[in-house]
Amino acid sequence: MAVNAQFKDMTHHLSPETIRRKPNPLKDTIRLILENPHLISLANGDPHPSTYPVRSMEFEVADPTGADPVATWRALGLSAPTLRVSADPASNAADAMLIRSSMRYGHGAGLKELCDAVGGINARYHTAPHHVPTISLASADGITKLWRMLGAVGDYFLADEYTFGPMALAADAHGVKWVPVRIDAGGLIPADLERLLRDWDDGLGRRPHVLYLTPCGQNPTGSTLSLERRKRIYEIAQVYDVIIVEDDPYYFLQYDLPNADPSAPEKPFPTSFLSLDVDGRVIRLDSFSKVMAPGLRVGWYTTSPFFHAHLVRLIDNSTQHPSGLPQVFLAQLLAPADASAGGAWGLDGFDRWVRSLRRDYQRRRDLLLRLFDAHVGASGLASADPPEAGMFVWIRVHIERHPRFARRAAAVGETEGPERERAVAHRPRTPLPQTNTAALMNEFFDACLRAGIVVCPGWAFVTNAEEDYGEPGAVPIIDRSNFVRTTFSGSEETMEAGVPILGRVLKEFFLA
Amino acid sequence: MAVNAQFKDMTHHLSPETIRRKPNPLKDTIRLILENPHLISLANGDPHPSTYPVRSMEFEVADPTGADPVATWRALGLSAPTLRVSADPASNAADAMLIRSSMRYGHGAGLKELCDAVGGINARYHTAPHHVPTISLASADGITKLWRMLGAVGDYFLADEYTFGPMALAADAHGVKWVPVRIDAGGLIPADLERLLRDWDDGLGRRPHVLYLTPCGQNPTGSTLSLERRKRIYEIAQVYDVIIVEDDPYYFLQYDLPNADPSAPEKPFPTSFLSLDVDGRVIRLDSFSKVMAPGLRVGWYTTSPFFHAHLVRLIDNSTQHPSGLPQVFLAQLLAPADASAGGAWGLDGFDRWVRSLRRDYQRRRDLLLRLFDAHVGASGLASADPPEAGMFVWIRVHIERHPRFARRAAAVGETEGPERERAVAHRPRTPLPQTNTAALMNEFFDACLRAGIVVCPGWAFVTNAEEDYGEPGAVPIIDRSNFVRTTFSGSEETMEAGVPILGRVLKEFFLA
Repeated sequence: MAVNAQFKDMTHHLSPETIRRKPNPLKDTIRLILENPHLISLANGDPHPSTYPVRSMEFEVADPTGADPVATWRALGLSAPTLRVSADPASNAADAMLIRSSMRYGHGAGLKELCDAVGGINARYHTAPHHVPTISLASADGITKLWRMLGAVGDYFLADEYTFGPMALAADAHGVKWVPVRIDAGGLIPADLERLLRDWDDGLGRRPHVLYLTPCGQNPTGSTLSLERRKRIYEIAQVYDVIIVEDDPYYFLQYDLPNADPSAPEKPFPTSFLSLDVDGRVIRLDSFSKVMAPGLRVGWYTTSPFFHAHLVRLIDNSTQHPSGLPQVFLAQLLAPADASAGGAWGLDGFDRWVRSLRRDYQRRRDLLLRLFDAHVGASGLASADPPEAGMFVWIRVHIERHPRFARRAAAVGETEGPERERAVAHRPRTPLPQTNTAALMNEFFDACLRAGIVVCPGWAFVTNAEEDYGEPGAVPIIDRSNFVRTTFSGSEETMEAGVPILGRVLKEFFLA
Repeated sequence: MAVNAQFKDMTHHLSPETIRRKPNPLKDTIRLILENPHLISLANGDPHPSTYPVRSMEFEVADPTGADPVATWRALGLSAPTLRVSADPASNAADAMLIRSSMRYGHGAGLKELCDAVGGINARYHTAPHHVPTISLASADGITKLWRMLGAVGDYFLADEYTFGPMALAADAHGVKWVPVRIDAGGLIPADLERLLRDWDDGLGRRPHVLYLTPCGQNPTGSTLSLERRKRIYEIAQVYDVIIVEDDPYYFLQYDLPNADPSAPEKPFPTSFLSLDVDGRVIRLDSFSKVMAPGLRVGWYTTSPFFHAHLVRLIDNSTQHPSGLPQVFLAQLLAPADASAGGAWGLDGFDRWVRSLRRDYQRRRDLLLRLFDAHVGASGLASADPPEAGMFVWIRVHIERHPRFARRAAAVGETEGPERERAVAHRPRTPLPQTNTAALMNEFFDACLRAGIVVCPGWAFVTNAEEDYGEPGAVPIIDRSNFVRTTFSGSEETMEAGVPILGRVLKEFFLA
């Protein structure tokens, strides 16, 4: 892991919108007040804190101690042991300050106490001494703001060829176009990334300057990038001056391979792109959604101070900071137990919780894989790679073995005569399918529904692109989307009920 | 108050960005799951609710009963009586459901229980049986989203000529231009609004289709629109098919005029534009920021079902819903006391709180006005209209009585010869000042700072416009910005210390 050196100036990566934002003269007045506490202010129109009707708050949370606290929490339900996280002005002055600062208009970067806590998480799991945190409203909002900060109409961003749709849609909405990069069981393929950047046709527009990826337990393919691939991707980003947006919600959910030696030491947390970043080109997003609860709607960016300043400006001018309630809850939950009467978990408790959570999800992944092997894989009609992180198993349906699998006549016809020359001369904007894979997969999806189960069809994750940026002669993605995404984030009962049905439907489907 | 009739289709008011947003195939899968609860889902990748480590929450809040609960709350501090608002699965099944739905990914419209509560507030203070609420992340975010929904690059929106800067800046950021409407002590002047729409030069672009206003306690001028003006503005909006964005954070802070008969019945809450809306053209924004605490970051839109659907889509694809913690807190706080073990205030308690809050702010307004009369107004060098709502007193400095007040030579010169003809033929994009008002007001502002007080200079609120849309021959706004904004939202001590200094500085300033 590298120690971060002097960061580059990344001004050229900002969208004109971010740069042209006009100054706000009122902010100057407010800054004046904040920087000169001796001034008597008749200017600041905030409602007076003495009128805020909230005095204290208290939350009952899981006890993260014990051998396997998540297992205990799930097994014992309402009788599981709990701890109390509170902020009570009657108990100490620090809590009084915290409640007061959480209930008034705050700073776009987030509550100082929470910034300190997530800074502590960063220091524990990453090596990034020169990057700084900015509290986000969890990653959906975090990414929406990033696209606005980095992208202008007509820009191109790079992403895995399968990706979580809403993240990409957020960029579509203001005119950014996506360029898909090939992905395999090991995640994004560095050679394809390099090809796309090296051979970029400037006639299309500016070369992509943003790469969006989910390095651990990628949604939907479940793949995790090896350290070797990460280093290679970072090098390519340096050569072509690309910003890496590292969206890493599944970072804490790391699993050993099935049948790993149970006495071997627990698999370490991976080296993040953040830890590799010496240029300030990595923007990392973390979230409490997957390791605590999505309804909290709190996460954090970790970036160079340069991007931090622009993000804070964007936050101050749009959503503002997240609600003070989840900020206080998380700040107190993660505060060192001795530093605050309200503290409960501290960072050690957080670490125990996420390590227990990964064991819990690992057991569920193993259950799904066992059920899959017994009811689906044994037929030879589908296969799946065991994911080493995240929540998803990406099942490949061996559609080419289906009795009705066919290359399309139209597709074959297109390979001859003047049609073929036109096809070679112009990259098709929407390449025609060469097989009936899509139709068959739709049939399969419908058959699952009729049998009472829902899976996510692979094509639902195809990154929306205007053109086919694949290598000449490559199979179009529509003909490679013979996948369904399944998840082990549901209950054991759901998996035990659903997977046998999936196997039965699959076998019936391949009969005709 | 009119009963709402059939609403118009407002599709033509949406920005292309809102309309062009691509469909999200994943949403179809999720909808399928939600609409068919009998299906076994291996599709939905939400973290499992049994792993969320939050069991219960409890908040200690002000007791809203008693003669003047806000006064009690402020006077007694930590010994003031409190009530407990809680959500505890151990106490009842409804609370268990509430915690569970608040902690998972929720609906863009907001938590159902909170939608019900704010729907109850709407029903109590407005007449709008056909409009529906959408929970917002308070009004700064609410407005940012509205501009995105309604405005495209090159569009024009109408606003008061003085307005709260950050709200307008949010629209600047994506290329919407502002057209300022004249404002006086009674708020926006309907005749000027009509002139701007009637005489709109189509050469500039599409006629403005959005009017942004703050009808009560306008920030910064403190003005409140009469029912007569509201009706006239609504009629004009009907004629020119304009959407009215009614941003009304100060609605609940209504004051009697100073020296009103104390035995007279309390002034009623005003009739909102929402209550006048028969077309579905009013989009109302409410917020808990001014009547509870800004740090909650929760408010709500009230709109036609048509705009609701588009807002939900925008929320789902960007910030998502507000955090579950403030949503649960507010839902339980406002729930009928008998309907939930956790309920505390109910809507009656909310009503008692806001009526006590307005008395509290009214006392502070009266204090500021008394101090003003004694230390500033008595000099005859400045004057102020008593605001009937909100938090601000807009002080007019009688700058034309200043010994160094002067009409600019350049300004005079421009009124003659060919220069004058050019000026008449082309509306100046940035009209030149005709007096030295701006320079003198800056001097005054600096003198205040040197004396240890901060006020907000009036020019900081001038709505940013590219051109001068004023009536021919009208005085440019730069020459009419002889105002400072002061507030009574601060403490009594601040006002008692600050206003005498303001008076002294003003008198000294007028000596030279």
